[in-house]
Order: sequence, then C-alpha cells, then structure tokens
Amino acid sequence: MEPGFADAQVTIVGLGLMGGSLAAALTSRGACRRVIGVARRPSTLRTALDLRFIHEGTTDLQAGVRQADLVILATPVRDILAKLEIIGPMLKPGAVVLDVGSTKKAICEAMAALPSHVQPVGGHPMCGKESSGLTMAEPELYQDKVFVLAPLPRTEPAALRLAQSLVQAIGAREVQLDPERHDRLVAAISHLPYMLAVSLVNAVESLADGDDLMWQLAAGGFRDTSRVAAGDIRMMTDILMTNRPAILDALHEAKIQLSQLTERLERNDMEGLAKAMLAARNRRLEMF
Amino acid sequence: MEPGFADAQVTIVGLGLMGGSLAAALTSRGACRRVIGVARRPSTLRTALDLRFIHEGTTDLQAGVRQADLVILATPVRDILAKLEIIGPMLKPGAVVLDVGSTKKAICEAMAALPSHVQPVGGHPMCGKESSGLTMAEPELYQDKVFVLAPLPRTEPAALRLAQSLVQAIGAREVQLDPERHDRLVAAISHLPYMLAVSLVNAVESLADGDDLMWQLAAGGFRDTSRVAAGDIRMMTDILMTNRPAILDALHEAKIQLSQLTERLERNDMEGLAKAMLAARNRRLEMF
Repeated sequence: MEPGFADAQVTIVGLGLMGGSLAAALTSRGACRRVIGVARRPSTLRTALDLRFIHEGTTDLQAGVRQADLVILATPVRDILAKLEIIGPMLKPGAVVLDVGSTKKAICEAMAALPSHVQPVGGHPMCGKESSGLTMAEPELYQDKVFVLAPLPRTEPAALRLAQSLVQAIGAREVQLDPERHDRLVAAISHLPYMLAVSLVNAVESLADGDDLMWQLAAGGFRDTSRVAAGDIRMMTDILMTNRPAILDALHEAKIQLSQLTERLERNDMEGLAKAMLAARNRRLEMF
Repeated sequence: MEPGFADAQVTIVGLGLMGGSLAAALTSRGACRRVIGVARRPSTLRTALDLRFIHEGTTDLQAGVRQADLVILATPVRDILAKLEIIGPMLKPGAVVLDVGSTKKAICEAMAALPSHVQPVGGHPMCGKESSGLTMAEPELYQDKVFVLAPLPRTEPAALRLAQSLVQAIGAREVQLDPERHDRLVAAISHLPYMLAVSLVNAVESLADGDDLMWQLAAGGFRDTSRVAAGDIRMMTDILMTNRPAILDALHEAKIQLSQLTERLERNDMEGLAKAMLAARNRRLEMF
C-alpha cells in the first residue's frame, strides 16, 4: 500500500513563490507522477501551466486534492490553518498532508485534529526571497537549503518517508524539529531580522525628516540590512500572529543588546564596544 | 599653475580595500600621470606593485607625498586624524589633501588646521565591502557609487575641481555635503545598520543558548541582515568614536521604532503592525 514518490500524485495548494518553486522543482526533474496546482485565480493557473510548473490546475480545492497521495499547503500560515479545518474529508485514505508554512506550532496543532485516515507532517523550507509571487518562482529555490520536517506523534513512518522523499527530490536538506523548538529558533534567526529591518527603514525615514539626500547615500550596507523589510506583508503578519511569544522573547533580547551598545557608546566605553563587535564579527565569519 | 588631473601625481596613503581600489581604478584607466602608494608594510607595497595598482610604493610617508599634486588619505578615521597633524609641512605648495574617511566633522576640523599652502577637501565614497584589505580591492569598486565631497570654506575652487576630477575618473557620482549634515545622514543610513547587525548576531547567539541548530536554520534573510556585522572592527570603532552624537540619535530612534513594533505585537494590534510594516516595505521598494 506504500506508493513510491515517483508514483505519487502531488497537489500543491497555493502557487506563489514557495508553491510555484516547489511545483517547478518537481516537474522539471520528473520527480513524481503528476503535479496538480490549486490556486484562487485562473490566471495563476494559466501562468503555471504555461511555465510547465504543473501538469494540471484547478481553482477547486476539493477537485484538486481528491486523488492526491501528497497534498502540500503552500499559502500564508492563517490560510493553511483555514484549509486544515476543511480539507480532511476531501482526502483519500492514507493521503499525506504537508505544509510549507513559516511557523509550526499552530499548524501542527491544527494538523493533530485532522481525521485519522489522513497523515499530517509539518514542514518549513528555510529559503525564500523578498519578492513573492509565481513570477519569482524558480526550480532551484530549494537546492541545498534546509527543509524542516515536524512529524506529529500520530504521523506514521511511511508518511514521514514520503515527505522525506519530497525533500530529497527538490534537492533540500532535511532537519527534523519539534514545533516548539522550530518556532523558537526561527523567531530568532528569521522573524527578528525582519522586525529589525522594518525598524531600521522606519527609523531612517524618521531621521531623514524629509532630507531626500538620505536615500541617495544608501550603499550596500543599508541595502542588505533592510532587504527583508520588503517582504510580503500578509505572510509576515500571519507569522507574527502565530509566533507571538517567541518573537516577543527575541525582540526583548535584541533590545537588551541594542541598549548595551548604546550605553557603552554613551560612556565612551570603546573596549566594551569592541568586545561586542568582535563577538558578532567572529560569529558571522564562522557562519558564512 | 593649475595642472589637469591627467598630469597629476596622486599619492594614496593606506592600501586597504578603499585605497587599493582607488589606486587600481586610477592606474587601470591611466587617469593620472603617476600613482604612488604609501603603506606601513613592505609586503603590502609588493602586492600592490604586483597587481599593478600603483606605479611606485614607499613605507615613508614624507617621501611618498613630497611631490604629490593630490594626496588621498585612505586609512581608518583616527589614523587620518593623526596623519593630518603631521602631513602639512611635508607637502608642496598647492597640494590638495583629500580623505576617504567614513565620518567628516572631526576630519574637516583637523583639515582646517592644515598650513595655508595646502588645499584640503573632505571626502567619503559611499561604498565598501564587509571584507577589508588590499586583496579584496577592485578597480570597479567606485563605479556609479556616490562620492561625497565636503570642501572647507578655505578650499579654493581649483582644489575642489581636482577632487571632482578624481571622482569622475573613478566613475563615481559626486554629492557635495557639509560635514555636519554628512555625519547625521550616514549615522542613520550606514552606522545604524551596523549597530543593528551587531545587536542581531549577539541576540541570536544569546537566544541560541548553545543550540547549534540555530545557525543551520539561518537562511538568506539572516545572512543579509547580519552581513555588515562582519565589518572591520578598527574602521568601525573609529567611526563610533568620531560620530557619537549622531549615532546615539539614530540608535534612540531605532529603539523607539523597535519598541513600537513590540508594543503593538504585545497588544495584538495587527492593524498597527501592518501599517508600520507597509510603510517600511513601500519605502524599501521605492529605493531598490
């Protein structure tokens, strides 16, 4: 009863940057039998078909997922939560439901309530771009990137293996994490950088006080530090709403660090400043 | 008495990323008669000669600048300040002294004290990399980048024109600014991003609390937001020491923005959050 991934019909719900790239990765490699796309707008489906990202498309969720061996929910987090409430009865027995949402606790809790004939696995690929949408999608988006899998206690081994096959098929690297730990880690490494970037852009706007020369002086440092502030608002508000406690902890820690730097600069404590700067520099150089 | 830039002997003091790239830009384009490099270490001079970045090199400041029509100080800010104290008597009448230091108020004040036979112009090219040193230098570093010129009240038009010729010769775009306004603007657009990047890396380190998976989850967002934290410590401490008031103002404003985001998240004020996020997103998209 366990079909290999090569024989699987995969339905991807949501054909934005993440879903579109996933579809492109699967079809371009011929990794599975069939890729079906579900999108709200017919124009999205037409584009995905024109790009050969999907074999077939539909705006009807039920029709799209009915025959699926693997359903991948690739919409913003709150939309994933809404779909998890209705999708269960639409699925055939043994169908695996995976998501690519940016937070995992709320989603895995909702997955736990799926009917027992369905197999849920939480997922989160650690990649993206600041530009969203199908037109930014590319088959190599997941290549060599970490893809977090968060199986539930109820997830059967065969279902996890199917999800693992998907991760392999798109060239990503699997890391298993429980939802709580995932949410705490990404609050720091992903959501905090976003909040700092938003704060930076808005602080500079306020400090510019109408002096347009400010923006002409922006060089590579500002460009990179602020990049994620251009991220998709819907995706980011969903993340904020479903990972509040961990993000508040991360913000609190960032404020402590920022206050320490400020106090040292106020006191002219160059030794203390250099120490903090060196610690950050060494860690950063170690990583990249 | 006004030699064209093509006839000028240019001496570059300091052959790191900025000075080395400047030398490379001038020699590769044959923009001036002669490029002389001054560096502390003979090995740096040998490398610069091997790369054909300079025509001649010396570790002796006096010997290097004696015949120069244009001297460019390309060391960290506090070293520029030290050199400005001693360089005046070494220069021939009418010699122009330009710097490429990251802050301008302290430097232009020191320039004002140069002997009257010397012509000072403050300068700051808005470009760089997080990796410093001659081996990272490249002739195209300044291409299409803003190069701030800060002439002093005492600067004669011919001296300013020579500095402008240099800016043109290396393909940069000139923007004239007085030192105070320059320092205020770069505190926001350049020094604040650095302080936020350092705070981010150190906050994530603290939040990781030894969980090495944190760093494996880092994706493009963290990489870009933290990039400038890998910057040169010496250069950055010099900037902090010579631009304290403006940087403290910028830090204060960033903390206000960060606190606002935090309070809105605490209160679950998603409308307020979305408004701040959208303002940052629109500004960022407008710029790049």
